[in-house]
Amino acid sequence: MPDRLLLTDLTAATMVPGTVAYGLIAQAAICVEGAAIRWVGSAGDVPEEFRDVSVRSLGGRLVTPALIDCHTHIVHGGDRAREFEMRLEGASYEEIARAGGGIVSTVSATREADEESLLSDALPRVDALIAEGVGCIEIKSGYGLDLETELRMMRVARRIGEMRPVTVVTSFLGAHAVPAGEDADRYIDEVCLPALEAAHAEGLVDAVDGFCEGIAFDTAQIARVFDRAAVLGLPVKLHAEQLSHMGSTALAARYGALSADHVEYATEEDARALAQAGSVAVLLPGAFYTLRETQTPPVQAFREAGVPMAVGTDLNPGSSPLGSLLLAMNMGCTLFRLTPEEALAGTTRHAARALGLSDRGEIRAGLRADLAVWDVKTPAELSYRIGSNPLHTRIFGGHS
Amino acid sequence: MPDRLLLTDLTAATMVPGTVAYGLIAQAAICVEGAAIRWVGSAGDVPEEFRDVSVRSLGGRLVTPALIDCHTHIVHGGDRAREFEMRLEGASYEEIARAGGGIVSTVSATREADEESLLSDALPRVDALIAEGVGCIEIKSGYGLDLETELRMMRVARRIGEMRPVTVVTSFLGAHAVPAGEDADRYIDEVCLPALEAAHAEGLVDAVDGFCEGIAFDTAQIARVFDRAAVLGLPVKLHAEQLSHMGSTALAARYGALSADHVEYATEEDARALAQAGSVAVLLPGAFYTLRETQTPPVQAFREAGVPMAVGTDLNPGSSPLGSLLLAMNMGCTLFRLTPEEALAGTTRHAARALGLSDRGEIRAGLRADLAVWDVKTPAELSYRIGSNPLHTRIFGGHS
Ligand SMILES: [Zn+2]
Ligand SMILES: [Zn+2]
Repeated sequence: MPDRLLLTDLTAATMVPGTVAYGLIAQAAICVEGAAIRWVGSAGDVPEEFRDVSVRSLGGRLVTPALIDCHTHIVHGGDRAREFEMRLEGASYEEIARAGGGIVSTVSATREADEESLLSDALPRVDALIAEGVGCIEIKSGYGLDLETELRMMRVARRIGEMRPVTVVTSFLGAHAVPAGEDADRYIDEVCLPALEAAHAEGLVDAVDGFCEGIAFDTAQIARVFDRAAVLGLPVKLHAEQLSHMGSTALAARYGALSADHVEYATEEDARALAQAGSVAVLLPGAFYTLRETQTPPVQAFREAGVPMAVGTDLNPGSSPLGSLLLAMNMGCTLFRLTPEEALAGTTRHAARALGLSDRGEIRAGLRADLAVWDVKTPAELSYRIGSNPLHTRIFGGHS
Repeated sequence: MPDRLLLTDLTAATMVPGTVAYGLIAQAAICVEGAAIRWVGSAGDVPEEFRDVSVRSLGGRLVTPALIDCHTHIVHGGDRAREFEMRLEGASYEEIARAGGGIVSTVSATREADEESLLSDALPRVDALIAEGVGCIEIKSGYGLDLETELRMMRVARRIGEMRPVTVVTSFLGAHAVPAGEDADRYIDEVCLPALEAAHAEGLVDAVDGFCEGIAFDTAQIARVFDRAAVLGLPVKLHAEQLSHMGSTALAARYGALSADHVEYATEEDARALAQAGSVAVLLPGAFYTLRETQTPPVQAFREAGVPMAVGTDLNPGSSPLGSLLLAMNMGCTLFRLTPEEALAGTTRHAARALGLSDRGEIRAGLRADLAVWDVKTPAELSYRIGSNPLHTRIFGGHS
């Protein structure tokens, strides 16, 4: 029989939808068996079979589902600190490009990095997320733009999941940018699709992603990638409507995407399409903040249409060198006017859905025992504080 | 003879003004004797008398002066998470006020808290700053608004400096807000000034601060506080021009203030007045961010007039629950367009000056050996990353 554990003296923000904000249970207890939650409820109602097991008191602390960062580019070579500095020193985009800046510089640095060095660069970033209660991280490829490097990024992502107590979900993002001097259509057909097939054959791909934007790929090109994903039986998601309205959210909905991400320029009609498709809108305030955008995503339209909203770091070296999911939650509230409850649902229940995972994101019998224990009195504090980390303990698969 | 130590294998961002950005010395060495820096320069030029002392290699890391947070309200009772949440749920300011929100709620919570509980609430916030390389923290009173509580806050600030390896510099901020139902002039004369005298008599006051704003005190009332500070021989500083132009920066300059803080609405003329007075402009992007202000401080005018700019967290439970000085640096760059070098000068050399301290803020012979050792390649990385903490070691008074 697997180990049984009774967690007591806690407040549980179960995030189970219902009439109570945060699915909150005061004076709660959680029964864990092996890696799974077996029961959660009022401390007075603990089932008979869990009364004689080992008990761990959490000192009145708040327990939430472990957090989920559903959108990251955490595996990449190099950094873009010099570009950040040049821009603030007044350099033009042209000067930065001439100095080798922009996404091209990350592509070069990633191509030059071997598997070990990509891994050792990424692990401190992964560890920082784990240290703030994250139990699941989505990781994209997309800085290789050639078969070999795209696969290397995906292998590093898988290795992170083996080396650290965290679930890694991968997205193949070959359609991230058009390599310098190449034709976009030719790139899709001759590099991106073959790389996708090869990565899938190695078991490296959990979902297929793309970047639909004037500076990247158009809807027809993304559709070809999504068609191939469908043939391979892989779910899709899309960087959509970040800098302009391209019809990319509607495209994502048409393909039943897990999520449409960024979506600053999505419309009310797009919101209805996402709701109908059951897709999640993934909000990425770190990029909005870094790029000093002014168009906020249509949060009210998402609410009215019933679109689940997730929140991610978008951790990447260019437009969002944001290493904290708690800070993304604060930014979601401060910049996008999410409520703290929406921000927490966005990094738990809805983030799980954005990754197609039905085994986590709430504290509920049958789900994984991935929990975060916090030194706070109320769940709103997790979004209220800026640049603080009140994590007390993280429990992953029943173990801390 | 005090202990001698030679730090080697490092890059030093000395922050000594000159022709080299960051006062950077590659392949540097730093000689420490007791609590003081005795020498800094190229590793090849280490003076004879430091060649036979104990050597500590820093593995090629970057060393900067320990950071200085020159504007905090880190001692306070309670938090304002519920108010944050209510506002995001659509509550009006009136509803929040009726629910006991606003600064009044912090004043109540602080008055109710005894010294031990103010201390135990503040220490985790202090420790979080220390963990990111901060060696000196300014702490204000101002949530008591009665003699007893103002003094209690100042005593707690002093105790923090005794309990933790950090220098605490106090500011008396009795003129922070008008207590509910009281007359501002009467409050200044009958509460604020007597409390200042009493706090000074106990040796609790390093500087005198005020909040000059439509919702707080006018320039004539602040002038009365500053006049008393002058009688007591205490330096002054001011929360100036945050939400409107009140003439408060000019007032601060007229009194030779150490600093004028916030200063979003300061003019070019104000900048020239600050430069002439030798006052520092303390920029507080955390409050700008939280309040979603749109008027940025006149950074270019400060540059042209030669006003030193510092950067602080403004850590407080209402308008800036920001617990990270590194994040304040990133916000200074991203929101106010400081360069990373200005942001680092703003938390080292210029922050020291904003506190009237001439013994720190640079890596230079004769200054305190307060150093921060970072896992980064270039000093720009400290401002570039958002919500990350690359501190490797902190050295305070020669000890780590
Ligand atoms: Zn992305
Ligand atoms: Zn302040």
